[in-house]
Amino acid sequence: GVNPDLASERLAASFSVELLTASLDGGAERTRTRRAVVEAIESDPVFSQENQYFQSQNERYEAAVKRAVYLQKKIREMGWSETGSEVQYIYRCLSGDIALSLHRVFMRSISVLGSDEQIAKWMPLATSYQIIGSYAQTELGHGTYLQGLETTAVFDAATQEFILNTPTISAMKWWPGDMGRSATHSVVFAQLCVHGKCYGVHPFILQIRSLQDHSPRPGVTVGDIGPKMNFQHADNGFLRLQNVRVPRENMLSKFCEVQPDGTYVRWGSQKINYFTMTSVRISVLSDEVILPLMKACTIAIRYSVVRRQSKLKPGEQEAKILDYQTQQQKLLPQLAAAYAFHFINTYLHELFNRGYQDIQGKNFDSLPELHAFSSGFKALVSQHCTSGVEICLRACGGHGYSLLSGLPSLYTKIIASCIYEGENTVLLLQTARFLIKCFMAVSAGQPVPPSVTYLSSAKPGKCPAKDKSDFLNPEIYLKAYEQMASRLISSSAAKLQHLIRSGVDEYEAWNQCTVQLERAAKAHCHYITVKNFVETVEKLDNKAGIQKIMKHLCDLFALHGILSNMGDFLYDGYLTAAHMDLVTASYLDLLAVIRKDAVPLVDAFDFTDRSLNSALGSYDGQVYQRLYEGARRSPTNQQGNPAYGKYLKPLLQNTLSKL
Amino acid sequence: GVNPDLASERLAASFSVELLTASLDGGAERTRTRRAVVEAIESDPVFSQENQYFQSQNERYEAAVKRAVYLQKKIREMGWSETGSEVQYIYRCLSGDIALSLHRVFMRSISVLGSDEQIAKWMPLATSYQIIGSYAQTELGHGTYLQGLETTAVFDAATQEFILNTPTISAMKWWPGDMGRSATHSVVFAQLCVHGKCYGVHPFILQIRSLQDHSPRPGVTVGDIGPKMNFQHADNGFLRLQNVRVPRENMLSKFCEVQPDGTYVRWGSQKINYFTMTSVRISVLSDEVILPLMKACTIAIRYSVVRRQSKLKPGEQEAKILDYQTQQQKLLPQLAAAYAFHFINTYLHELFNRGYQDIQGKNFDSLPELHAFSSGFKALVSQHCTSGVEICLRACGGHGYSLLSGLPSLYTKIIASCIYEGENTVLLLQTARFLIKCFMAVSAGQPVPPSVTYLSSAKPGKCPAKDKSDFLNPEIYLKAYEQMASRLISSSAAKLQHLIRSGVDEYEAWNQCTVQLERAAKAHCHYITVKNFVETVEKLDNKAGIQKIMKHLCDLFALHGILSNMGDFLYDGYLTAAHMDLVTASYLDLLAVIRKDAVPLVDAFDFTDRSLNSALGSYDGQVYQRLYEGARRSPTNQQGNPAYGKYLKPLLQNTLSKL
Repeated sequence: GVNPDLASERLAASFSVELLTASLDGGAERTRTRRAVVEAIESDPVFSQENQYFQSQNERYEAAVKRAVYLQKKIREMGWSETGSEVQYIYRCLSGDIALSLHRVFMRSISVLGSDEQIAKWMPLATSYQIIGSYAQTELGHGTYLQGLETTAVFDAATQEFILNTPTISAMKWWPGDMGRSATHSVVFAQLCVHGKCYGVHPFILQIRSLQDHSPRPGVTVGDIGPKMNFQHADNGFLRLQNVRVPRENMLSKFCEVQPDGTYVRWGSQKINYFTMTSVRISVLSDEVILPLMKACTIAIRYSVVRRQSKLKPGEQEAKILDYQTQQQKLLPQLAAAYAFHFINTYLHELFNRGYQDIQGKNFDSLPELHAFSSGFKALVSQHCTSGVEICLRACGGHGYSLLSGLPSLYTKIIASCIYEGENTVLLLQTARFLIKCFMAVSAGQPVPPSVTYLSSAKPGKCPAKDKSDFLNPEIYLKAYEQMASRLISSSAAKLQHLIRSGVDEYEAWNQCTVQLERAAKAHCHYITVKNFVETVEKLDNKAGIQKIMKHLCDLFALHGILSNMGDFLYDGYLTAAHMDLVTASYLDLLAVIRKDAVPLVDAFDFTDRSLNSALGSYDGQVYQRLYEGARRSPTNQQGNPAYGKYLKPLLQNTLSKL
Repeated sequence: GVNPDLASERLAASFSVELLTASLDGGAERTRTRRAVVEAIESDPVFSQENQYFQSQNERYEAAVKRAVYLQKKIREMGWSETGSEVQYIYRCLSGDIALSLHRVFMRSISVLGSDEQIAKWMPLATSYQIIGSYAQTELGHGTYLQGLETTAVFDAATQEFILNTPTISAMKWWPGDMGRSATHSVVFAQLCVHGKCYGVHPFILQIRSLQDHSPRPGVTVGDIGPKMNFQHADNGFLRLQNVRVPRENMLSKFCEVQPDGTYVRWGSQKINYFTMTSVRISVLSDEVILPLMKACTIAIRYSVVRRQSKLKPGEQEAKILDYQTQQQKLLPQLAAAYAFHFINTYLHELFNRGYQDIQGKNFDSLPELHAFSSGFKALVSQHCTSGVEICLRACGGHGYSLLSGLPSLYTKIIASCIYEGENTVLLLQTARFLIKCFMAVSAGQPVPPSVTYLSSAKPGKCPAKDKSDFLNPEIYLKAYEQMASRLISSSAAKLQHLIRSGVDEYEAWNQCTVQLERAAKAHCHYITVKNFVETVEKLDNKAGIQKIMKHLCDLFALHGILSNMGDFLYDGYLTAAHMDLVTASYLDLLAVIRKDAVPLVDAFDFTDRSLNSALGSYDGQVYQRLYEGARRSPTNQQGNPAYGKYLKPLLQNTLSKL
């Protein structure tokens, strides 16, 4: 049965959970498809992740490979398409604990960068898993800065081969997924040298392991990079190359080629690579960043109405911890953020799809904005969601610290999203570069993309709000965000120009402004997120109370952002201390209002107990029973005590006579 | 050999590292003692933690018990005293990965709460490890709120025994260390009931496992609570009791007793318990909170001068990442905080020792202040240090995410310090309660402890700073902190009074103010930390440049705090936007200055490579070599590939013919 404290929360819902779920999915039809996929996967014991928290790195890797191999079978059995929506839902319910995901990047890079002949040769083998591929770009000593890669590919005209080497220890490929123990092949990036001339980094297809016995090919040293904070299921690998030869045909050559005599020819646009990075950054947001925050909110909020502690009033029963203002202040802004980021993700996908259409029509105009957006939002959203998951974990006290709560693994996994696919600071500075350019253009009266036209409209002034209810008016808070973002961008630009005019070298001037530039880029993305939330709420149907509760969440997200960055809003006097008191008052009112719908709002995310994999977060709220069951299944209770006979027994053996 | 990029940093030191180390230790003599202890421990292979990152929960537990048992032998061999300074250094160099630490709490509680007879009976057995104790207070459903504990101890006058029960699943003891698999005995807290009357929570000594074969005693169900985010070496346990009987003499009875006829007698002061909690909170700060931040800074800063990425200027070599302003902005404030918290820790110990002397003279006057301080600083410092370690981890990019960096385990361990020994929000609200009382006293013209007299001196006004160098004057920034803390406390008090006057129930009014009260308590502790740093710097000898560099760190800590809480400083106009620009300018200048001494400043913490256990942080900076060596030792490369034969080989076996 459902814990009665949790059940009573559901009775009090002010809106229809089912309608909200459908709205989040993009329609009731999609909800049905998603549920059918989840049901098909979760009913199959091969895909169970029940024992995940007890497994070693070796065990998790084995289980992940097993899942990956069986999944292909399942997809065929179910008649799902590799590119269909079903497959997207699979990865959602497997929570990423599946191997061979770099194999898909391997395939994508061949299909994007390979010639027609190369595609015809390699894709059928890869599609049917007759070879297993990885993607080797990052090196032990080199990440973001691709020009710094050390691996070399020297053309030998005599044999019509490239000779690949990782000449130093820091040149070893390091981190590629599926490489450590699984892959037979890899796309490897190396500096191309022909007749003593270097042409920069190019991709090569390389066989790294024998197809007969899986042993490394001659000249190849390959292995696993060892334990990580999470991703134990993934065999991230290292690769050392000593005079490994590949035929000339193995350089991926859709855009350039080395001809038999060593002539280097290049054609086509490089901008498409730009677009690939953008696409990857947008695609990680939903599954790897926003869903984990939604899960963490679900776990922490359900637990917070089951857990009781201390008394709000003497003589009463102990209170649900969610009834404390401090607990609301921790969790409800994270819940609002999860919705805000879900909506910005939808917005980014629409922007991306429009950009993709343009590109297919050979129009590359939207690329800079798209690149700036994907970089900035990847950084903003991964940073917020990581910190949100940490807050949820800590808000569950001691039990949040147990792996059985599900929260530690959500945290140790999501924190990686701040680093991979572009480190967040580097990404924000790319967004800042775009914003500075736009600001210059605006100042010079030139046209800019619609998302940054606000840079021309912001003028010094004072917020007209007079009452706390004014801060529930989106026009009022949006204007404050606009003002703040615009000022941070213009003052960074001014500092930069001032330094350059006073003779500081341009590169050095940029470095001296980066702390402020990073902040400006964050402020811009934050503003766009609030604006998009407001516009999403306006477009919602007001059926069944959904628009009303979403409006509350939008207000909370906006006001929480103002209070968390109070200094930036007070700085130029657009908001005053008296305004901040009104913001605080409205914010605290909203906490109490949203508190009432907190459980239905996480129920609407529609996670199954299996995908949450949490003793604290299950739908029935049987928290203590599940913690106890989990503990009893732990190997520490199943495998005897390795220390007793060796170390404890000798201490205790003569005690009896003395007691 | 030492990596040349790291070696050159040391040549440039502006101060004597050896003198700073001695100053941090409290004298060169202590440094020598500490090094001798570290040498004795680290040269003994039993204590090696080399394979820690590769071990399962079972393996880490076994190793920790082994270490605990051997340590007693080592201590005897070396002639160290259990209460001497050597023992304190041991725990520093074992990084806490040692079992039976709750055994010491078991002993402390008997010696504090037990009668002379009880001490005489149990302490010799415990001291010689002939019994192994745990300490069972927290229950599955009950933590902070002790009155809510459900375990009962009913007195049976007929047999002169107490009958102990955990009547529900939520009443099970949960989390006690050393209980899951090691302890033979435990102090157990239970609601005492005599002849149908309840006397509240009392401690009982209970045998939980057989001394002959270690099996649970009749009526006892005991086991391990399973995997956690860290502390895999510790066997945190659960304990279920069904009609377990203990003799009347087993209730710890220094302060109260149940007489044979069931008469309940109480004597002595309860305030001493208050003092015990205070002492534990202060004692965790150094080893469990501040040292981990120092280690994280050491790792991240050494790595940041070895790692090179991108170019600051075209044509130059790739730059050390510590030369980027954004990297300095991440790491150097953490370094300053590590020093700030080291000094506040010294301050707290002095305060505590003075309080202890008073108490021995039966003067309990300093207890409220001491309790408020220990609560607030435990919360502030654990929160700051946890977030600091996370920043260090992320600042090392992908390699920071490898367990081999040492950073993930520092993080997953330190985050627990925000929860244990009092959840931080609960603690800050206790500090707030003290501050509100003091504020009321000050308003009524009554005397208050010296640490809060500033509440009476703060008046509205404007900071007199005119130039960025003014913000390097401690008087200027201390006054700003004082103003800010004082205002947050007084406005919380005003809101509270207003609510109560307008008829809101007192408990409800308190709950409605808790978000602001928590903030006020943090501001107070932050102010005291800055003030103590300033006073420490003033007292430092200016020999060998130490005072100068410490002054820079103190300024950085203070200005970083202002910028991170800009809104609170701008709010009442004491600082203006123009002031903030000056603060920013001075702050950025300081980053560049401290950057030059960053490596010597972490060298001064004097961690051995063994205690850092980090491929990125070793003294020689041979980062890439160590990562590679670590990876090769990983069980993922040593134990064969469990997935190849079963899942991959079948896919690949027919590929050859097609290639």
